Amino acid sequence: MFKIVVEDARRYKNATDAIVNLIDEGLLEIGKDGLFLRAMDPSQISMVVFSMPASAFMQYEAPLPPAKVGLNFDSISKILSRSRAGEKLEITKADNKLQLKFIGQRRRRSFKVPIIDMPAGATKEPSVQYDALVKVSSTHFKESLRDALLVGSHITLEASEKGFAIEVHGDSSDLTEENEMQSEEVIEMKISKPARATFPLEYLEDIVRACPDNSALTIHLTTDKPLKIEYEVESAKVVYYLAPRIEAD
Amino acid sequence: MFKIVVEDARRYKNATDAIVNLIDEGLLEIGKDGLFLRAMDPSQISMVVFSMPASAFMQYEAPLPPAKVGLNFDSISKILSRSRAGEKLEITKADNKLQLKFIGQRRRRSFKVPIIDMPAGATKEPSVQYDALVKVSSTHFKESLRDALLVGSHITLEASEKGFAIEVHGDSSDLTEENEMQSEEVIEMKISKPARATFPLEYLEDIVRACPDNSALTIHLTTDKPLKIEYEVESAKVVYYLAPRIEAD
Amino acid sequence: MFKIVVEDARRYKNATDAIVNLIDEGLLEIGKDGLFLRAMDPSQISMVVFSMPASAFMQYEAPLPPAKVGLNFDSISKILSRSRAGEKLEITKADNKLQLKFIGQRRRRSFKVPIIDMPAGATKEPSVQYDALVKVSSTHFKESLRDALLVGSHITLEASEKGFAIEVHGDSSDLTEENEMQSEEVIEMKISKPARATFPLEYLEDIVRACPDNSALTIHLTTDKPLKIEYEVESAKVVYYLAPRIEAD
Repeated sequence: MFKIVVEDARRYKNATDAIVNLIDEGLLEIGKDGLFLRAMDPSQISMVVFSMPASAFMQYEAPLPPAKVGLNFDSISKILSRSRAGEKLEITKADNKLQLKFIGQRRRRSFKVPIIDMPAGATKEPSVQYDALVKVSSTHFKESLRDALLVGSHITLEASEKGFAIEVHGDSSDLTEENEMQSEEVIEMKISKPARATFPLEYLEDIVRACPDNSALTIHLTTDKPLKIEYEVESAKVVYYLAPRIEAD
Repeated sequence: MFKIVVEDARRYKNATDAIVNLIDEGLLEIGKDGLFLRAMDPSQISMVVFSMPASAFMQYEAPLPPAKVGLNFDSISKILSRSRAGEKLEITKADNKLQLKFIGQRRRRSFKVPIIDMPAGATKEPSVQYDALVKVSSTHFKESLRDALLVGSHITLEASEKGFAIEVHGDSSDLTEENEMQSEEVIEMKISKPARATFPLEYLEDIVRACPDNSALTIHLTTDKPLKIEYEVESAKVVYYLAPRIEAD
Repeated sequence: MFKIVVEDARRYKNATDAIVNLIDEGLLEIGKDGLFLRAMDPSQISMVVFSMPASAFMQYEAPLPPAKVGLNFDSISKILSRSRAGEKLEITKADNKLQLKFIGQRRRRSFKVPIIDMPAGATKEPSVQYDALVKVSSTHFKESLRDALLVGSHITLEASEKGFAIEVHGDSSDLTEENEMQSEEVIEMKISKPARATFPLEYLEDIVRACPDNSALTIHLTTDKPLKIEYEVESAKVVYYLAPRIEAD
């Protein structure tokens, strides 16, 4: 049995959305240090690793050993968005369902959603030696992805001594964006070797969507290797991996 | 012949929407005391009774005997939303059509819509002895319906000494809401006997839609009997009835 | 070769939209005095004549003789809407494509779109002797078109000593609007002979869409002849012609 109390359900929703944008269903681990989830999207092209410390909650009681709870995060996100001002949220297990109980002064609203039977997959994080780190402004990077979307479906990211560049080659149009090392978009860059790889734009958009505006988002890049993107949303830490598209020569 | 002059067409639209949300076409009675309409929705599950006193209008001239005018309220609502600041609206009969004339200082806009031949149905209001009256905040009750919509298509309303409760049982999820007698949602309750019945959510949403925010909405309930809901919108008074779903045992 | 530098890409987009609302592709002439385009919409019912003086640009270098560049204005409009604060825009020809380069302080974004092979059509402006000129408020005239859209698909415009009138006869409803010579809608009128003609509403809406709100729009009218509408948007001047619908007797 477990019991988690959230003071601001809306903020907890923002964190949950970092999962929802990539996967509908997943296995959430409720351990003594906090919540943890690692899952691949259904197409196996991207992976999300989500962790939220016990300290982020008003009250946090985990079972021993940790519980693994199969959940539909899409349903949960919709329920979390129903929170109202002045209510706290209590998450427990009841009747073999997950119970989300909004507690107001003279009103109680209690949603129950099914706990899904799911295999505990042996998802491993890719082990890549990264050659380049680019810390970008989330707002600017999201705008760059919107630029890219006008032109094509795949985007090439490149980090070199010249800075951070983006290229898109569509059916009829092309886009190149060049950002100097210290620019509107780039907060920090560290490069041991130039790196360049191409990714499906749609996945990249899903990955950055939950990142709050005007915050930092860190991109790790090695030529033709999976991309790693990290950021924080509310008190949660999220790490994403995304497989590159390798062109046949 | 009749002539009705409206000072603020936009407010008159809000009142008309209390009809439109349930029925497209209906027979409006233009009597000496004001406007009156009673109609069932096409599926015969719900009924609206609408009345607006002559005093709500800038000028009101009714025929003797009262006129019964078959109208498409959907068209009329769209036309009313075309009102502009500083215009008054004159409603008359012209060429066997209903004429809505917006009169500005140096501009006249005149819409004519057909008068529809409709049988004067013998719609009778259900006569139910109500066991419970619950006066709720319109804003909070609309939010509760939105909660319910996440979970299922039918909603159970229950009034008892414990307060006012809502239950929804969907295919996979469930919702219960409990409001104490005096709470964020409940303004007033009077109960002679506990009452509980289940209704189609979609109709309930249509019924409350025209109710202004932050105002009161009165629910009359008897176990497994049609629900009665009343509220005021601008100067109009609306009463709705909605048939319950009775479960086979 | 040519080079055009735009200080405010967003304003240049507004001007371009006066073309886009009617045609997707067209032949833009880059001459020494400025930009020029004349084209019919694909259905050959309406024509747009667009001109923007060299003085409207921060820098303007035209080739001799003038270049005629076939462009997809829809793509270009979408790219122009990607401009960000503090960037200037440089338009040149590169690799036989049109290059739109947004130049920020430490960032360069460069879109390339194809130059399309198009025949230099011999589009001639209709030569009509106009009997009536009506200068209307763009905001009010757009509202009148929205009124009309509720009722039917064709609109009759009429200018006479009584003022400027609009009529729409739909399948079931009708609309008449009468504006006196000096009214909320009419800024100025000059009439040598009364004029009245009927036009497809949808085209008229496309024609006025790019006209800024609260500005003037001039309508030239002769009975059963093509309509001429002129207005300015940013520094561009646009003239439209629209063929009337002539009823068979």
